[in-house]
Amino acid sequence: MKFLNAKGTKDVLVEEKLVMDDILNTIKNVFELYGYGPLETPMLERFEVLSSKDAGGSEILKETFQLKDQGKRLLGLRYDLTVPLARFIAMNSNLKLPFKRYQIGKVFRDGPVSSNRIREFTQCDVDVVGSNSLGYDAEMLAVAYDIFKRLGFKFRIKVNNRKILDSLLDELKVENKEQVILEIDKLDKIGDKEVIKNITKLTSNKIAKKIIKKIKSKNLKLKNNEGIEELNEVVKYLKLFGVKNVLIDYSLARGLSYYTGTVFEVFTDKKESIAGGGRYDNMISKFCNKNVPAVGISFGLNRIYNSYNKDFKRNITNVYLIPINTFKDSIKILNELRNNDIRADIDLSNKNLSKNLNYVNKKGIPFSLFIGKKELNSKKLRLKDMKTGKERLMSLNSIIKILK
Amino acid sequence: MKFLNAKGTKDVLVEEKLVMDDILNTIKNVFELYGYGPLETPMLERFEVLSSKDAGGSEILKETFQLKDQGKRLLGLRYDLTVPLARFIAMNSNLKLPFKRYQIGKVFRDGPVSSNRIREFTQCDVDVVGSNSLGYDAEMLAVAYDIFKRLGFKFRIKVNNRKILDSLLDELKVENKEQVILEIDKLDKIGDKEVIKNITKLTSNKIAKKIIKKIKSKNLKLKNNEGIEELNEVVKYLKLFGVKNVLIDYSLARGLSYYTGTVFEVFTDKKESIAGGGRYDNMISKFCNKNVPAVGISFGLNRIYNSYNKDFKRNITNVYLIPINTFKDSIKILNELRNNDIRADIDLSNKNLSKNLNYVNKKGIPFSLFIGKKELNSKKLRLKDMKTGKERLMSLNSIIKILK
Repeated sequence: MKFLNAKGTKDVLVEEKLVMDDILNTIKNVFELYGYGPLETPMLERFEVLSSKDAGGSEILKETFQLKDQGKRLLGLRYDLTVPLARFIAMNSNLKLPFKRYQIGKVFRDGPVSSNRIREFTQCDVDVVGSNSLGYDAEMLAVAYDIFKRLGFKFRIKVNNRKILDSLLDELKVENKEQVILEIDKLDKIGDKEVIKNITKLTSNKIAKKIIKKIKSKNLKLKNNEGIEELNEVVKYLKLFGVKNVLIDYSLARGLSYYTGTVFEVFTDKKESIAGGGRYDNMISKFCNKNVPAVGISFGLNRIYNSYNKDFKRNITNVYLIPINTFKDSIKILNELRNNDIRADIDLSNKNLSKNLNYVNKKGIPFSLFIGKKELNSKKLRLKDMKTGKERLMSLNSIIKILK
Repeated sequence: MKFLNAKGTKDVLVEEKLVMDDILNTIKNVFELYGYGPLETPMLERFEVLSSKDAGGSEILKETFQLKDQGKRLLGLRYDLTVPLARFIAMNSNLKLPFKRYQIGKVFRDGPVSSNRIREFTQCDVDVVGSNSLGYDAEMLAVAYDIFKRLGFKFRIKVNNRKILDSLLDELKVENKEQVILEIDKLDKIGDKEVIKNITKLTSNKIAKKIIKKIKSKNLKLKNNEGIEELNEVVKYLKLFGVKNVLIDYSLARGLSYYTGTVFEVFTDKKESIAGGGRYDNMISKFCNKNVPAVGISFGLNRIYNSYNKDFKRNITNVYLIPINTFKDSIKILNELRNNDIRADIDLSNKNLSKNLNYVNKKGIPFSLFIGKKELNSKKLRLKDMKTGKERLMSLNSIIKILK
C-alpha cells in the first residue's frame, strides 16, 4: 500500500508552518487591536444550514463536502466562516450589538485543484454584525491596511459599491444585470476588448461600450446617487483612519451574490488577490427574521503565504547542548536554560560529537554549547556562534543573558 | 427552519475562546521550549490510511466519519494526529532523525456524546520519531510537568510499562491477555472487587486475586525483568529533568493496542484524565517498512479547559473612547493608541453617551476615555477606571504609558 495525501490537500512542513504562524500572529494581533474577539464554530455543520437559500448559493454548494453521522443526519464541511456566523447569530439573540468577532479556521471546497486552490485551506475573517454605519466598512480596510503594512507587503486596496453598478445598469435599461456584472468583474483579468465582446452578447455593442466607458470614468454621475454617496462616505472614514493605497474601481463587483453595498478587495503589486469582502445586510437578517446588517473581510492565509517574503528563517531551537562525558551535569544546565525560557535542546540518544555537530548544522540551530569536564570545573562553558564560527568561554549567567 | 449545531459539536463563545487561547499559548510555548517544531497535516485523509491495519484499530474506525470527494475517492476525517504523522513519516524518508514535532488541531469521532466527549475536539500532540532512547519517554513527562505547572494545575503523573503487565500475565500463564489488560485498566474507576470479579470470568478467582495483589505491590519482581528495567531507567531520567508528582502504577495500561513500552497518563486532583501517551515502536515502522521507534503524548484541550481555573477574565479591548461632539479628533486619538499597540475601540454607529457607557460596562472593558472639547483644548483627557470608578485627567502620552 502507498501512503498519500487526499487529493487537493497537503502537509505543511515545520519550516513553512513557522512562517505561517508568524503571519497568523500578526493577523490575530491586529484583529484584537481593533476590538474583535475570537469565536470558534465547528467544521461540521448541518447540511440544511449550509444549503439554506440565503446562504452561499448554488455554485458553492456544488463544492461542499457532504457526509452523514451515525444517526444518519446529513452534515457538511463548512465552505466559509460567514454562513456559520449567521447561524450563530440566529441562535444567540441576546448578543450585545454591534458584535465584533474574528475567526481563524479551515474551510473546505471540493473543487478543481491548482497551486492557489486547494480543498482544505485557512481563512481569517473579521465581521461586524448589527450596525449599518459605513464607519465599519472603512474599519475593515483599516484592519487590512494595518495587517499588510506590518507584513511588509506592497499592496493596493480596491473599493466600490454594488449599488453603483446596479444603478448604472438600471439607467441603461440592462435586463440580465447579474450576468453583466459577472462580466464586468473580469475587466482586470481579460481586458476591455474581451469584456465588451462578452457584454455585447448579453446586450448590444453600443450598451457594452457605454458601460465600460462609464465605469472607467473618474467622476461617475448617476441619477440614483445612493451608491456614490455611500462610497464617498467610506472614503471620508478611510482618510480619518489614515488608510492609504486606496483606489476606487467601479468595475469591482466580487462574485458572491450576497453583497449589498460596499465591496473591496486587496491585491499585491503582482495583482494577486489576498483579501476581500464587503457589506451584506440581508443574509443574517434572513437567518434571523429581523434586521441585522453586517460587513466583513476575509484574509486567505495560503495566498498571503505564497506572496510573503520568506527570507527570514525562524528556528525552534536557539542553542544545542553538546555534552562531552558530562551528560548528567549537562541536563542540569539544560533545565536551567529552559527555566529561563530559552529554547535549548540536547541529544538524548547518545550521539557522538561529530553526529551532534552535523545535527546542529543541518537544523540551522544558531548556537551550540560545549560542556566538558574542564568547562564544568572552571564554571565557564564554550558557546559557539554557528554562523561566524566564533567560540567564547562564558559563565552560564552570561549565556542566559545573551540568549534571552 | 430552525438553525442548530450539528449533533455533538458546539460553538466556543468569545469569552471561552480567549481562555482556550491562553491555554493553547502555554502549551505551544512549552512545546517549542523543548525543541519541538510545528507540523500541520490535513483534516481529510484517504480512508485507506486511517483504516490501515497498523493504524488506530477497529474500535476507533467505527467512530470515523467517512465521505467522498467529487472524484468518488473515499476519505475520512482524522480521528487522531498520530496516524497522519505515521503517514507523513512514510512519505518523507529524508527527515533528520530524531524528528521532534508538535501538532495542534481538531480531530473527529462519531461516537456517543457527553459533557467530556464531543464529536469535534482539539488535540495537542508532541512526538519524537526515530529514537528508542528512554530519555525521550521521560521528556514527554517533563513537557507535561512544565505545562501543568504553568497552568496552575494540581496534578499527578502515572507511569507504567506495558511489558510489565505482559510478563506478569505470561508468568501466570494467562491466555486472553488483551482482555485481562483492559479489565486491569479499570481498577481506578470501578475498584478491586469488580475487577477481580471480571478477571475471574476470564481466568480463575485464584489467578485474578494474584494479579491484583502483584499489581498493587510496591516492589514487583518478575522473571522477565525488561519492563521493570525500562521503567527504572525512565524514573532516573525523570529525576534528572526535575519532574515531580510521579506515581508508578502497574495497573496503568491505556486502551490503545499500539503501545509497546512506557505508558503514562496525567490526572487532575479530581481524577480527570487531561493528557496521556506512551511509546509505540511498531506503528510507524510498519507504515515505513523500516525500524522507526516513536514516543508521544497528547493533551486534550477541552478536558484541560473544563478543569482549568477560569477566574481570570481576559478582555479584548482595554480602553473604550467616548467622544462628546469630538468624533473626528477622537478617531485621531484612537489611531494613535492603536499605533502604540494599545487595544482601543470606539463606537462608529453614533450611540449616545449613556448607551456607550452601558456597552463598556456590559463588555467589562477596564477603562473608558472621555473626550470633550474642553479636554481637547487643555490636552488632558479623562481616563476612567471602570472598576474603581476613579477618573484622572491625563495627557495622551501618560495614558499610553499607563495602558501599555
